[in-house]
Amino acid sequence: MMALAGYPLGIRCQFLDRSENAPAAQLAPILLGDLQDSKKIEELARNNQVLTFDWENVPAQALKSFRGRSPIRPSVESLSISQDRLQEKALFKELRIPVTPHAAVDSLEDLARAAARLGTPGMLKTRRLGYDGKGQFLIKRVRDLAAAWEALRGVPLIYEQFMRFSIEVSLVGVRTPRGETTFYPLARNTHRGGILRVSIAPHVNAALERSARKFVARVMETLDYAGVLAVEFFVVDGKLVANEMAPRVHNSGHWTIEGCVTSQFENHLRAICELPLGSTRLLGQVAMINFIGKMPERDRLLQIDGLAFHDYGKQPRPARKLGHCTILQSTPAARDHALALAMKHIRSA
Amino acid sequence: MMALAGYPLGIRCQFLDRSENAPAAQLAPILLGDLQDSKKIEELARNNQVLTFDWENVPAQALKSFRGRSPIRPSVESLSISQDRLQEKALFKELRIPVTPHAAVDSLEDLARAAARLGTPGMLKTRRLGYDGKGQFLIKRVRDLAAAWEALRGVPLIYEQFMRFSIEVSLVGVRTPRGETTFYPLARNTHRGGILRVSIAPHVNAALERSARKFVARVMETLDYAGVLAVEFFVVDGKLVANEMAPRVHNSGHWTIEGCVTSQFENHLRAICELPLGSTRLLGQVAMINFIGKMPERDRLLQIDGLAFHDYGKQPRPARKLGHCTILQSTPAARDHALALAMKHIRSA
Repeated sequence: MMALAGYPLGIRCQFLDRSENAPAAQLAPILLGDLQDSKKIEELARNNQVLTFDWENVPAQALKSFRGRSPIRPSVESLSISQDRLQEKALFKELRIPVTPHAAVDSLEDLARAAARLGTPGMLKTRRLGYDGKGQFLIKRVRDLAAAWEALRGVPLIYEQFMRFSIEVSLVGVRTPRGETTFYPLARNTHRGGILRVSIAPHVNAALERSARKFVARVMETLDYAGVLAVEFFVVDGKLVANEMAPRVHNSGHWTIEGCVTSQFENHLRAICELPLGSTRLLGQVAMINFIGKMPERDRLLQIDGLAFHDYGKQPRPARKLGHCTILQSTPAARDHALALAMKHIRSA
Repeated sequence: MMALAGYPLGIRCQFLDRSENAPAAQLAPILLGDLQDSKKIEELARNNQVLTFDWENVPAQALKSFRGRSPIRPSVESLSISQDRLQEKALFKELRIPVTPHAAVDSLEDLARAAARLGTPGMLKTRRLGYDGKGQFLIKRVRDLAAAWEALRGVPLIYEQFMRFSIEVSLVGVRTPRGETTFYPLARNTHRGGILRVSIAPHVNAALERSARKFVARVMETLDYAGVLAVEFFVVDGKLVANEMAPRVHNSGHWTIEGCVTSQFENHLRAICELPLGSTRLLGQVAMINFIGKMPERDRLLQIDGLAFHDYGKQPRPARKLGHCTILQSTPAARDHALALAMKHIRSA
């Protein structure tokens, strides 16, 4: 989606990937290699004016030693912080952004102490390399502690109080190296099994949106951020509690391709290439549904009015995001009607 | 733009082109070869489920002998008619669509007779292979006849009465092989030197739009058309007079990428691949400006609110269409303001 957004702007992407079957290989040149291989990263930097990433588990270590001429945007520091739940929460706290009560866990004793202090239920999570619900264990009661510890031990962990949130929302912001900043409308997200299923935009709540913009702006300024940044929030008692941030184009912003004047992909490219940012104005009432593990029947979905289809050209695999569709309508009722129809087709796939 | 629209749908395009530097080569596989080479067309048909074209001067003769398994959409008949101004006008007349008074010209005597009957000024045009104002001669008075004849003689010609039109408009329609048909909003076009410069949409005039839809629908039904069809009209005394048709995605519909729920490129692909058509609903007030001969300064244009940039990656050449930009705004005033700004930058390029 980044490469597709680049072509009209005259921006050409090259992708570093371990596989020549990478989805991007269908439409852009691939540099075959490992993300940890600093030689390959140097080669990428020689070929291109700026480096970026669309996955937050890129090994920050390999990038830290990188001293190429092309900048990496967002910065390796931003990437690095987002890779560690504890560092991420420390940053949020420092910026007076509410976070889930939590504690670092490096032993079963730490875990017992954390559960005693913060209560159960709670989530034990790996501090690093977690995504789409991986590396998480729900601790319902104290007697689950040992099982949770056995399941995840061996890497740095974090215990988080289980938040009784009413909804989850996310805000996508974008900032240029010179500090020009803009935001997309707030989206409401539904996860299942730790994987994003549906995003609805706009989520109309002026107070929440104001808070979210303020919080995301603080993170971006502090990190001297360049590119798209997404922050996911729980809404607890009508207030935002930051869950996590993603220093990249984000799944909960895919609806901006059809739903806004300029997509998050184009604005990410504009930002990292030091171009003026494009308008994030909303064009209607939008819903985005992920295709997970299995592709739905394209031709049936295309019958739905206002639906755009996105096939990533990936091999199906359980729990893998293979594509998505976006519904753009002029009223919430029409959007919700089309969404219900689409969900029916997708579930029966 | 067709290939870019195809990727999300899971539709892959391969392009037959004489040059490996073809714009499409940047993002899709090219089959190197001549458009007249029936072997190459057969190879293309073996590789692909359906053949189409985005240029109406594809030699219809080479396609007529084609007996491959993959269909050619739109049909070779539609292509063939659109390649000959006289046949095109004959079709329009047969369908009771008003056309410019005209006469076939195969000799200087024919030309003199036509000018006497239809009056001057008039346009002498080649019947075939004309585009972007090429192959045309404006005859202001009778004494220009000989010069016009000398300039264009040697191929079949047509003399057309010069229309004193108030504006030019075009309508883009799309039809599936099964007859599902939809239309984009009417656009108002400005040409200079025979080349489209600016399209503005929507051109709000319910009566004109109704007529245009009726006329384009008639053409599509008669030809059992599949794909996008554009018809350009003069508005003379408040009524439509058909100028020409283009059996393909059309420059005066490029604004649909940003301006409508589904672009003409996606709907052309949906139509020729027998998929349901997408919504042509308008998303705002739109303007499209062509970049002709020289690319403007991208970074300045991108400062304009609501502007999307399209660089075709072509080598600059006088009078060559190298790209375009689209402005999407929510009011005509905001659109016109941004359009004026953009025109200033583009003219000074």
